[in-house]
Amino acid sequence: MQKYLKLGVKMDEKIINAFIDSTLHVLETMASMEVKAGQPYLKKDKIARGDVTGVIGLIGKTKGTLSISFSEKSILAIVSKMFREEMKELNEEIQDAVGEITNTISGQVRQKLDELGWSLKASIPTVITGKNHSITHITSDPIIAIPFATNDGKFTIEVCFEE
Amino acid sequence: MQKYLKLGVKMDEKIINAFIDSTLHVLETMASMEVKAGQPYLKKDKIARGDVTGVIGLIGKTKGTLSISFSEKSILAIVSKMFREEMKELNEEIQDAVGEITNTISGQVRQKLDELGWSLKASIPTVITGKNHSITHITSDPIIAIPFATNDGKFTIEVCFEE
Repeated sequence: MQKYLKLGVKMDEKIINAFIDSTLHVLETMASMEVKAGQPYLKKDKIARGDVTGVIGLIGKTKGTLSISFSEKSILAIVSKMFREEMKELNEEIQDAVGEITNTISGQVRQKLDELGWSLKASIPTVITGKNHSITHITSDPIIAIPFATNDGKFTIEVCFEE
Repeated sequence: MQKYLKLGVKMDEKIINAFIDSTLHVLETMASMEVKAGQPYLKKDKIARGDVTGVIGLIGKTKGTLSISFSEKSILAIVSKMFREEMKELNEEIQDAVGEITNTISGQVRQKLDELGWSLKASIPTVITGKNHSITHITSDPIIAIPFATNDGKFTIEVCFEE
């Protein structure tokens, strides 16, 4: 576990690992995709960018947000594997797939966090599409970014919670 | 009230009016900005676009999402009025202001819906910036879009709930 995180922030390893493990499992299950998780980091000035982003709100005793930002290359590769059909552009099917991936990862995460006694509900996911957009979460609490790599490009998960 | 909506969907007038009235009030209070609400419509194939979008999840007995998408022109005018200083580009200050506007409108809406017996909590807002991005909410339930006009450009609120 220790390999994932030495950030010294409130959000502890088990929680971050819930996001990492859920993401790996969901991509493996939905797209037979082998994905590698990089070192999580504290997002400060670093601005995340992506071409398609799924956002979902998480609320229980605490409130938070989860976003997943894909490069065009990575999401076309992932959805091509999901549909077993070559996807060539960021169309409505891709947006729906990103919504489904966001929902499914959020569901897995919430199940894992529930086991840790941290019960959360999720909002309806929103998907934003636009070349090289930036994503900012408006909170004074730490935002954790987790980079993932596929053989065909990268994506980044961002998580924040206010206690 | 009848002027606002004849859509024949589950989300009723009082709820939609809570979003309209809160938005008008918040823009008036925060930016001394006179804003006009247009006719709400059911978002079907119509894709909303914007240059800066605030997204916030709403969760209680039901789950939903609220997004506010501004054209560059409209948000620069709004934040210039908020700060009493001419804003010329979509920078971090604009993103923070959009987060604050999203949070404040969500807060007002939740207060009004609470009076209707519909208690909701809000997630941490996320702000997406990128020229002419599109916004999609992943739900099979109706999505209501409410267009607003300022003297300096337009913005659109989108709301959806799953019962």
